[in-house]
This record gives sequence, C-alpha cells and structure tokens, in this order.
Amino acid sequence: MKTIHTDTSVTPVLFPDTLAAASLQQFRATPPLVHCLTNEVVQSFTANVLLALGAFPAMVVEPEEAAQFSAMANSLLINIGTLHRARAESMLAAISAANQVGTPWVLDPVAVGGLAYRTDFAKELLLLKPVAIRGNASEIMALSGIATMGRGVDSVDTSLAALPAARQLATQARTVVAITGEVDYITDGQRVFAVTGGDKLMTRVVGTGCALSAVVAAFSALQGDRLHHVATACRIMSQVGGQVSQRVAGPGSFIPAFLDGLYQLDTLAY
Amino acid sequence: MKTIHTDTSVTPVLFPDTLAAASLQQFRATPPLVHCLTNEVVQSFTANVLLALGAFPAMVVEPEEAAQFSAMANSLLINIGTLHRARAESMLAAISAANQVGTPWVLDPVAVGGLAYRTDFAKELLLLKPVAIRGNASEIMALSGIATMGRGVDSVDTSLAALPAARQLATQARTVVAITGEVDYITDGQRVFAVTGGDKLMTRVVGTGCALSAVVAAFSALQGDRLHHVATACRIMSQVGGQVSQRVAGPGSFIPAFLDGLYQLDTLAY
Amino acid sequence: MKTIHTDTSVTPVLFPDTLAAASLQQFRATPPLVHCLTNEVVQSFTANVLLALGAFPAMVVEPEEAAQFSAMANSLLINIGTLHRARAESMLAAISAANQVGTPWVLDPVAVGGLAYRTDFAKELLLLKPVAIRGNASEIMALSGIATMGRGVDSVDTSLAALPAARQLATQARTVVAITGEVDYITDGQRVFAVTGGDKLMTRVVGTGCALSAVVAAFSALQGDRLHHVATACRIMSQVGGQVSQRVAGPGSFIPAFLDGLYQLDTLAY
Repeated sequence: MKTIHTDTSVTPVLFPDTLAAASLQQFRATPPLVHCLTNEVVQSFTANVLLALGAFPAMVVEPEEAAQFSAMANSLLINIGTLHRARAESMLAAISAANQVGTPWVLDPVAVGGLAYRTDFAKELLLLKPVAIRGNASEIMALSGIATMGRGVDSVDTSLAALPAARQLATQARTVVAITGEVDYITDGQRVFAVTGGDKLMTRVVGTGCALSAVVAAFSALQGDRLHHVATACRIMSQVGGQVSQRVAGPGSFIPAFLDGLYQLDTLAY
Repeated sequence: MKTIHTDTSVTPVLFPDTLAAASLQQFRATPPLVHCLTNEVVQSFTANVLLALGAFPAMVVEPEEAAQFSAMANSLLINIGTLHRARAESMLAAISAANQVGTPWVLDPVAVGGLAYRTDFAKELLLLKPVAIRGNASEIMALSGIATMGRGVDSVDTSLAALPAARQLATQARTVVAITGEVDYITDGQRVFAVTGGDKLMTRVVGTGCALSAVVAAFSALQGDRLHHVATACRIMSQVGGQVSQRVAGPGSFIPAFLDGLYQLDTLAY
Repeated sequence: MKTIHTDTSVTPVLFPDTLAAASLQQFRATPPLVHCLTNEVVQSFTANVLLALGAFPAMVVEPEEAAQFSAMANSLLINIGTLHRARAESMLAAISAANQVGTPWVLDPVAVGGLAYRTDFAKELLLLKPVAIRGNASEIMALSGIATMGRGVDSVDTSLAALPAARQLATQARTVVAITGEVDYITDGQRVFAVTGGDKLMTRVVGTGCALSAVVAAFSALQGDRLHHVATACRIMSQVGGQVSQRVAGPGSFIPAFLDGLYQLDTLAY
C-alpha cells in the first residue's frame, strides 16, 4: 500500500479496494433504510444519491414521529446546515430514540465554528455518541475545539492539517471521523485511512458533502468494522465523482451523470 | 378493451387512450393553477413536473395566506410526507377555504400506517372530503383501516392486493382512489380502471409518486368525470416515465428526460 | 446604442456589453459570499446557480445565526416566496444585522399584491432599505402601490407597462429596481437600461426568476455603480438562458445545460 505524506505520528494508509469492495457487497446485500434529518437545501439531492445506490431514504421531521421512525430505521443522519429550534427539537428526539434501540447515527456539523447557535448544539450532540462524524477541515477543527479562520461555509484549512484534530476528536468521542477535502482522511483515533479521487468540480455542486454524509450514515448501518464502512462511503463518492467530472461540461451535467454513476457502480478501482 | 386479471368482484378495465386524450386536451385548454402544500423533499421536482405539463404550481404556506390562496387556485394538493405542526395548521386552513368555495383538493397520504402522528392527521383529513386520494398499496390499505406490514415509506403490498381496500375507501369517503404500483388502479368504488406502463427505475428517483399526486390534483381541477381525469394523470406519468426509462443510463438522467418528455407530450399510446 | 420603444419620459438604453463585461470581471476577482433567505422550492437551484458562477451561497435560517451570518456575508437575499412567521422573524433579524454593518441586501417580492400577509411584510421591508428589488411586472406594480390583476404567481402585466411604477419605486425607496419579463428593465429612477434575450422556456423551469434575484444579490456586493451590476446580473442570466434554450429538448435538459452555461460563461455578446 502506498503511503501519503503527513506530519502526524500515524501514517495514513491508502484505503484498499479489497476492503471497499467487501463493504459495498455487504451494503448491497442489506440496503439500509436511512432516516435523514438534513438541511433544507440538499434534501432532494441527498434522497436521490441514496436511491441511486439502492438505499431507502426517508425524511420524517415531526418530533414524535422522528423518534418513532428512528427506532425503525437502520441508521440516522443529523445534518445541521439549516438548523432552527423546531428542527433541533426533532433531532434530539430522533437521536434519543435511536440511542435507546441502538440505531447508529451520524453527524454532519455543517459550518460549525463560525456560528454560535449551531456550534453549541453540535457540542451538545457530541455527548450523544454519534458513530461517525463527516466534515471539512474547518468543521472538524472547530468541533474538536481548535480555532479556525473560516466563515463557516467554506473550508480554509486542508484535510491533512485537520488530521490531528480528527484523531483527537475520534478518540475522545469514541467515534469515526472523516475529514473530506482534496484527500479524505478517515480515522478512529488509532488507524488512519486516506481516500483520494474526487474533483474540484464537486465543490461547484451544492450538497455533494451533505450527500456524502448521508452515504456515511447508510454504510454505518452495516455490521463489522465501521472504519472500513465509512472509508468505503468516501471512496465510492470520490471515485464516481472523479470519473464523472472528467466527462461532463460543467456542474449542471455533473448532477445527472453522478447519480447515473452511483446507480451503475459495479467495481471500485483506483 | 383488454381486461386485467383480478380477484375482486369488479373487473378492472384498461383505461382507454381515447378518454385519456380527451382529458389531456381539456387540460391544455384550461391549464390549472395548483396550490401545492407538499413535502420538503420534492417541492422543486413537483413544481417542474407541473410546469412541464403547462400547469401553474404555487406553494403558499403561511396559514392565512394558504387559505386565501386556496380560494383562488383551481385545485389544492395536500401531501403529508414531512408533516409537522405548523404545516398541519396551514393544511387545515387551506382545505377549509378550498371547501368553502368549492376548490377540489387531493390527498397524498405519504407513509400513513407506520407512523402515528400522520396517520391520525390523515384520518382527520378524510372527513374533509378530498376529491381524490393517491397512494401506494400500503398507504391505501392503512388509510382504509386494513393492517399492513410496511415501515411506511416502502410499499410491501401490491396494488392489486389493495384494490378491495381502495374500493371500500372510495365508497365510504365518496372520492376517487388511485393505488399506484407496477399496475395502477383507479376507482370510484364502482368502476375500476387499470393503467400499465411505468418502470422500476422510477422508484430510484425521489418524488415520482409525489409529483404524480400533484398531477392528479391538477387534473382534478377539470370539469367532467373525475375518475377519467385521475386515470389520465396516472396514464401520462406512466407512459412518459416508461418510455424515458428505456433510453436513459440511470435515475440521474431520467429526471431531465422525464421533464422533457412531459413537455413534449403529444399523443397517448400504449 | 439601440433604443427600445417606450411610452415613458425616459428612453431605456440597451445595456452595453462593455459595462457588463467590466462588472463580470470585477465579480470574478472578488466572488461574493451570499446569504440566501429564500423560498423552500428553489433553494437547491439557487445555490447551484451561484456556485456555477463562482459565488458562495449559504442558507442560515435560525434568527440569531441569520443575524450573525448576515454581518459576515458580502450580501443578503430576501425572497418571500414561502414566507411564514418563523422565517419572517429570521429575515428581519438578518436585515437588521446587515444594515448595521453595511451588508447590501436585495428583495424578491414574490407574489406580492395578490396575498395579504406577504404584501404587508414586503411593504414593511421596503422601509429597511434594500439596495435592489427584482420582480415581475405585477409584483413591482403592486409594491409601488399600483393595482394589478394577477393572482400573485403569474405576471399578467408586461415589464414595459410596469416601468413607470418601477421608476417611482426606485426613486421613493432610493434603490435599484429590476422588472423582468420578455425584456428586462433596470432603473434607479433616473436612468433606465433594457436587457433583451432569455426565452419563454425559462418560464417552464421553477426558480429561474428566484435564482436571478440571488445573482442580483451577488452582484450587489460589488463596489461601483450598482445599476450596472444589477443590469449585468440580468444580462448574464438572459444571455445564457436564451442560448441554452435554443439547443435543449425541453425544460428538464434546460436545467443542467443552464448551470453548465453559467459555469462556462466567458464572454458577453448580444
């Protein structure tokens, strides 16, 4: 396995295709029902990404129902992009129900750091044991308590610079952390996998990061080593996104081609 | 007319193209303004489907305005996919105003059966006289009071199995019921039409069912035999969806091709 | 410069490409972060339009955060398409914060005139000094206090007929007003620019007008003559929309092609 240069004490290992293929095969054998409490802007794209992969998305938002549904779903996504009080109440109800029956839930801490209300809320959520967290470098650094310079919606830090913060966060919160950027790093605090691929064009399409978090939630429903499953989610999205970007004219035609690519995903190859 | 095999006392009749063509012609002569109180995930796709067909969608959500607008619109859609208390209040205000002036309204009982809050709400809505109801087999069975095994978002029952429930529901609520699935059945309790077509690919795109309900609402604005108009809505969506599915690479490219197909819809043919 | 026929006292001048090119160049040198408080139906398309052009969209909706974020953003969009009480509170908080630090904000008065709640709210917003207003003829006439015959979502008046109302509104509110239609007119009360282009197909895609308002907000962040910047926003959307409409099969394929066109926008030419 090729190593990626790094200044941390653990050397990231390029995530092997064999592990990704095994995880994807498991995913297809048991396509999960994913309860998505996500932001207003990306709900349709998120649902379409999950459907393309063969999973079953559902958005149930009234607090009582959100709790009832989280207990039935195979996993739960919490994305705080357009957080407001009523939705925060639904999220807490859903997480509480999920934790009671053991439904794994995943946190996407959108824009944490720059904005006070959501930053406080995300720190409160950290105590409720997400099984995985997916964010960009600025978000992961902010969530781990390290100051950053972003305005909350753009990441001014690289994923590698955030790796120490990610490892610390993973260790303290006993979770898997995925920092995504030009290279993605996925860590449980001890082990670190790197995922390459993707394309800058993906930053010109709203919701690619949010949809990845939904895919992370979907793969978090699987039995076995969750670090591998989360890395597989990153790998799939990077590979298909990178391939598709090479043959489209822009971000508009990227969207249908990307969904088609996820639908047609047969093999994983670097 | 060809008959479809069935185990109910009434034999479904394949919905004739001549009736569909007449209904479509009437639709084009008087394109309706449709007030859509629908779920968060599918609003954009729903609006684009109605616009492609030449109708005028509008989403007006504040309770007072929703009531004011329902009285101006040609029909009203109520879809409870992401129901919450504030939106439920808007729906009740809109329905009440619609009923006062005779604006026809249509119910899409998304995921009724598996979830308590919406199931209670949907049963309350039934008393407010929707002119049509569009759902999958599990939803229609749940709404008619028959137990089902779904988790609320996926239909585990076939549309044919739900036909007795649909007929009972249509008779009791004096409405038209459309059960959609591999074959769609549309009934007013006495007569039953079958609509074939469509494609499994449509289940991999979020909002195809919800958009159909909006089209049912649009066609419910027409004068004449509502059973024919609702069947025409189902027929159009199945035919265009089925044709488009044959020539696209996946669910991503289905979306633009489907909207183009609705826009270009000239003739109806099996 | 070619003149456009008109019955007002000021002769509209076709907006020159040289001014549009200069404004676009400035836009690219300093791509703005745009805070969008817009309607539920068009959020994803709006974000994708801004991203395609190289701007940074963000939707932050909780009142306290919306205020905090407006002070960081380069401009703010207020679109009242799906206004409700909670969102109105967020809008007022965001506008107040924007005004305190000098963040320019833009109003899209969707469906004002036909509906009471939003019409009252829009008139309240007028006093809070938007730097630009973008609407169709019916909306601009209603906002200026002139009666119209629309149902609020469709414009039954032509943009030229609304030009006197637009000039009066621009003068009284000390703002730039863009009336869009077959021909767009952009005025600061004294000067009037006309922008041609576009295509009727754009009225069959939800959110083209709303996305234009977001682009107006983005261009309003630029230093210099705001009338030129707002006209440039209209010019870009009309030109790309018109070009794309010629080579697509319908409104479905318009969407990806339009986003690609904005992304590839190199030169402006009539």
